[in-house]
Amino acid sequence: MEFSSFLTSLGTSFVIFIVLMLLFAWLSTKPGNAVVYYPNRILKGLEPCEGGSRTRNPFAWIREAFSSTEQDVINMSGVDTAVYFVFLSTVLGILVLSGIVLLPVLLPVASTDDGLRKNGNTTTSKGTFNDLDKLSMANIEEKSPKLWAFLIAVYWVSVVTYVLSWKAYKHVSALRANALMSPEVRPEQFAVLVRDLPEVAPGQTRKDQVDSYFRSIYPDTFYRSLVVTNNKKVDKIWGELEGYKKKLARAEAISEGSSTRPTNKTGFLGLCGKQVDSIEYYNEKIKELTKKLEAEQKVTLREKQLGSALVFFTNRVTATLAAQSLHAQMVNKWMVTEAPEPRQLVWSNLTIKFFERIVRQYIIYFVVFLTIVFYIIPIGFISAITTLENLRKLLPFLKPIIDRAEIKTVLEAYLPQLALIVFLALLPMFLLFLSKMEGIPSGSHVIRAASGKYFYFSVLNVFIGVTIGGTLFRTMKSIEEDPNSLVPLLAKSLPVNATFFLTFVALKFFVGYGLELSRIVPLIIYHLKRKYLCKTEAEIREAWCPGDISYATRVPNDMLVITIVLCYSVIAPVIIPFGVLYFALGWLVLRNQALKVYVPAYESYGRMWPHMHNRIMGSLLLYQVTMFGYFGVSQFSYTPILILLPILSLIFSYVCRKKFYNAFCHTALEVASQELKQTPNMEQIFRSYVPPSLISEKQEEDGQFEDALSRVSRTGSSV
Amino acid sequence: MEFSSFLTSLGTSFVIFIVLMLLFAWLSTKPGNAVVYYPNRILKGLEPCEGGSRTRNPFAWIREAFSSTEQDVINMSGVDTAVYFVFLSTVLGILVLSGIVLLPVLLPVASTDDGLRKNGNTTTSKGTFNDLDKLSMANIEEKSPKLWAFLIAVYWVSVVTYVLSWKAYKHVSALRANALMSPEVRPEQFAVLVRDLPEVAPGQTRKDQVDSYFRSIYPDTFYRSLVVTNNKKVDKIWGELEGYKKKLARAEAISEGSSTRPTNKTGFLGLCGKQVDSIEYYNEKIKELTKKLEAEQKVTLREKQLGSALVFFTNRVTATLAAQSLHAQMVNKWMVTEAPEPRQLVWSNLTIKFFERIVRQYIIYFVVFLTIVFYIIPIGFISAITTLENLRKLLPFLKPIIDRAEIKTVLEAYLPQLALIVFLALLPMFLLFLSKMEGIPSGSHVIRAASGKYFYFSVLNVFIGVTIGGTLFRTMKSIEEDPNSLVPLLAKSLPVNATFFLTFVALKFFVGYGLELSRIVPLIIYHLKRKYLCKTEAEIREAWCPGDISYATRVPNDMLVITIVLCYSVIAPVIIPFGVLYFALGWLVLRNQALKVYVPAYESYGRMWPHMHNRIMGSLLLYQVTMFGYFGVSQFSYTPILILLPILSLIFSYVCRKKFYNAFCHTALEVASQELKQTPNMEQIFRSYVPPSLISEKQEEDGQFEDALSRVSRTGSSV
Repeated sequence: MEFSSFLTSLGTSFVIFIVLMLLFAWLSTKPGNAVVYYPNRILKGLEPCEGGSRTRNPFAWIREAFSSTEQDVINMSGVDTAVYFVFLSTVLGILVLSGIVLLPVLLPVASTDDGLRKNGNTTTSKGTFNDLDKLSMANIEEKSPKLWAFLIAVYWVSVVTYVLSWKAYKHVSALRANALMSPEVRPEQFAVLVRDLPEVAPGQTRKDQVDSYFRSIYPDTFYRSLVVTNNKKVDKIWGELEGYKKKLARAEAISEGSSTRPTNKTGFLGLCGKQVDSIEYYNEKIKELTKKLEAEQKVTLREKQLGSALVFFTNRVTATLAAQSLHAQMVNKWMVTEAPEPRQLVWSNLTIKFFERIVRQYIIYFVVFLTIVFYIIPIGFISAITTLENLRKLLPFLKPIIDRAEIKTVLEAYLPQLALIVFLALLPMFLLFLSKMEGIPSGSHVIRAASGKYFYFSVLNVFIGVTIGGTLFRTMKSIEEDPNSLVPLLAKSLPVNATFFLTFVALKFFVGYGLELSRIVPLIIYHLKRKYLCKTEAEIREAWCPGDISYATRVPNDMLVITIVLCYSVIAPVIIPFGVLYFALGWLVLRNQALKVYVPAYESYGRMWPHMHNRIMGSLLLYQVTMFGYFGVSQFSYTPILILLPILSLIFSYVCRKKFYNAFCHTALEVASQELKQTPNMEQIFRSYVPPSLISEKQEEDGQFEDALSRVSRTGSSV
Repeated sequence: MEFSSFLTSLGTSFVIFIVLMLLFAWLSTKPGNAVVYYPNRILKGLEPCEGGSRTRNPFAWIREAFSSTEQDVINMSGVDTAVYFVFLSTVLGILVLSGIVLLPVLLPVASTDDGLRKNGNTTTSKGTFNDLDKLSMANIEEKSPKLWAFLIAVYWVSVVTYVLSWKAYKHVSALRANALMSPEVRPEQFAVLVRDLPEVAPGQTRKDQVDSYFRSIYPDTFYRSLVVTNNKKVDKIWGELEGYKKKLARAEAISEGSSTRPTNKTGFLGLCGKQVDSIEYYNEKIKELTKKLEAEQKVTLREKQLGSALVFFTNRVTATLAAQSLHAQMVNKWMVTEAPEPRQLVWSNLTIKFFERIVRQYIIYFVVFLTIVFYIIPIGFISAITTLENLRKLLPFLKPIIDRAEIKTVLEAYLPQLALIVFLALLPMFLLFLSKMEGIPSGSHVIRAASGKYFYFSVLNVFIGVTIGGTLFRTMKSIEEDPNSLVPLLAKSLPVNATFFLTFVALKFFVGYGLELSRIVPLIIYHLKRKYLCKTEAEIREAWCPGDISYATRVPNDMLVITIVLCYSVIAPVIIPFGVLYFALGWLVLRNQALKVYVPAYESYGRMWPHMHNRIMGSLLLYQVTMFGYFGVSQFSYTPILILLPILSLIFSYVCRKKFYNAFCHTALEVASQELKQTPNMEQIFRSYVPPSLISEKQEEDGQFEDALSRVSRTGSSV
């Protein structure tokens, strides 16, 4: 790729971004699109946008994003989103501060030297553009004293990273503490999750067992318990019931619109069977299922109690204390942990036993390891099979289509990569599935786990893979002889690939953030659905309802960019402005999206932060080791000075972990002991945890839950 | 060493043991020696021995030891001692079960083969006795199918170890739970230790700070707090005062015995200065110091408060919960942990800050590492210096003594090893000192830490050192070429050294336990002291008062023996009976000592166990790896089957750790929530933690501690 071609591709993507931004400015003012561009505000009951939607400046969103405070973000989108912005601005700060020093110092130093030409080293820059290489460390002669400037630059970047991430950790810790000590009543602060219940004594029920155990330890503050039940059957009936309710609403909406009453067939998928009047049929079905549901609810509550429970306390301090303490002499019994929010409970994982969880975890780690290292093998295999020839042979009926010239060209271009494309599209879901299989009880934790896996995948494959991959086969011999040569190898191939990654980062942000901001895809989908599919209000609502920011893929992608930029920051400082642009644009666009579009799916009070911090430290470490190898290659005799940096990073991480981390695993007591605004309504807290399929229609009956969920309202036979 | 010489040395030590045991049987019946042989019973207010002391069978102690139950041991010597016996009997069980299978199977297999002679392999057994080598695995031919028997034996020993140590862990866990749930009031169960207090706000005192903090979190159960003060000065005055009190008692005892009143000189060490009447002089001094002490106590309590405190709660459950929970958002503030027993508090370590503790720990680890690896260097250096020639030169006044023939011979024999002898004698104390320097707040923990260090020292130096040491220099070259050759090297030199270790173990138990049982040394010291030094009752009591079992050196020594015996169990099964004898004799002798002699210095409720368990697992792992290497040398093609064992051991350790370990770090709540026999006397609990130097003579004044130790009795200005 030549320099001009890089500029062309940069220019093109910049134009795409501008077009998408203008499109956004125009589309977002249309009232009909408000539900796509302002769903978060609408769901919070606010005006779609401040000021009239017609008269407003199309670029007002930029002003609004800049003028919004952290508190606004917390109010609109929760602590997790605010923490994500701390992450963005920390990384931005690191890159800006690095750039301010590195660009004016290193670029002149590099460009005034002549190492590349002198060494006749044109082979390494083959396929890359020399103009950029002249501005990089590759242009410095070996053993030149000018390398001192680069060595000091490595230190400067590291120190900036330490200082800013320390400040950020402190800030996030305060954010978390503030959120947790809020005087609002939050159900999860009054509950603990109890897993690994031991066998029940004969003649005792699960709830007797749980209640008597906790009542004896916390006689004053125990409120009641909710034994987890096997809800498979009741969930199924409830799902069917809800489905018929939706269909009924739809049929009613249709019959209102037209004069004929809608009909449907009762057989498979409504395609065969008897023709019936829909509204009557659905009403009958609903009545029938409601009865069935009630019966099943009773059976479930009474007979399908499983080995875990949620236990509720009448105050926050006790719940906080209980969640951190060992309850049983054998650790694999009565395992008590913090209760996740009701909405992020992964019910199916609650009853997995202690050692099974551990075994599952290791198996999953192993599967992920295999996936990361060997994913290319099955994909290559599939690619090899899915050639046009094979398709023609295996699926002869496709022949006429395949043989058409235009389709053939497209297929020939994409078929080999098809497996890879499908794999990369499915990977986040696969990793989420794997993380869920680990037996993690909380949704946010599953997402953190998946995000971590995705990070390893992307860094190892994209970064190290691309860097080493190309040269690996050629140099396989040299590695076999001396396994220690991996670091210099990595370092040697870095500058060659700098330009590749520069293009990668540059393209990524313009097109990616343009699409993000303009929401073209959701907009089109929404309008199509509204026109052809949705009949009822609920269906339309479902059509525009946005997801959350989806950290599981967003954070690893950001981490990959920061890793790349950090690693090249000293070698080719021209990459820094692109990194700055990526995170600055990201901050701006996502600020808008967080305030107006995305609706958070959970609140974990910033638990994502230690995860981000560790990954930043991991990137820094990779950077420092790479630089050590790179300096080693340049035969600079003061290179050993750099060995101090990885050690410093490890110490820094260790100190951060020791000082801050525990407060992210648990709630500190000084935080939980803050006074509440009002006395908590314990019944409401309790009910927020009852799964919807178990809530009876006749909610008024007080004794409904006595059977399975707790014993508190009965005359306590277990006390 | 030839076989006969081994038998001779074995016979000699057996005779020594018999003599010492007879001596014990005779001496222990003398009433005058009761305080040496039954101090634990006497201190507990029991009869020295059951039944009349004259008429009893001199071997009754054996019957008594066997008939004593675990509960007897707990009553007389605490849970820690009972756990030590679990350790002994577990190890004994492992060896007995191994021996029952290995001896009748492996010995015939080995002796019927002829590998040694066929290989002409007489060089390896040079200096060792062939008769024993013929019974060892070294006598098996290479690649012989007879090796299967040995391979299965390795599995058998491992499985026996797993099963018995699993059972033991479970049993000890139950022991600990039972002791902790005892209905007796124990002060440490109502207190927590709070370290790393943050800076005090201006105008606030430490105790206000502590009291208000804990009262806000635990409004119902907080009792009061005891802020740690800087007691250096008050301790010094108190020490002087106590010294004078002792001297006064002594002077009074002397004056009672004789007609003249004792006098002394007031100057340095009583050697110069004015001659005064002792009783008058001491009385005056005591009066003076008492005043000084009271003044200093007030100053200390008011002005010398430091950054840590003990906090008392009115119930066990709250204290247990608090000790396990995070209190401050920043982990290095308000660090709350379980309070150690009053008698094992290491006051000087309480005020060391969080990160300082960590840094100290790593420094100490490094120092220990250096000590273990390089201790031989300074010792060699000192040995080189302290030759007779040098002594004569440096200390010429010694010349006439050194030049005498008989002294010269002795000096020449021992001078070279003098440094080593002194070093080995001082090592346990040095390790205890190092462990204390780590900043550990509890005495039992210091001993555990020192014991761990000693174990590494002894295993690495004695076992691996002796085994490898001899062959190391010869084979230095081969190791340099291939670092993986360490395991086969270790394995190859094992059988050669088997006989050395056999002698080592055999000698150790007969002489060691003989001395232990007969208590010859303490007996002589006691009688000498009583005759020439002690005047008062208190002094005599001090002269016979025994220490505790001193786990810091005993456990690592036992561990060394089990490591040696395990490692040789399959190679040379004849070592097993000696191991059995060592632990059986140890069990018997120490059972007697625990019941009658030693007085426990602390009670840690079996916290030593995980430590022992891990070391047993470590020995097993070393054994399995060694066997893997040894089988590799024998070119047995099924050797890879053995690779499964180390993995199994790691999994087993991991499972044990997960299942049991937490209950040893913390108190489980189901244990702490057991009901107490009586309402705890909180004032008494509180006072048990006040250091003796701060207890005023006029203890009745209720408000005495208000100033520094707590605020509970004042009108609470801080609430």
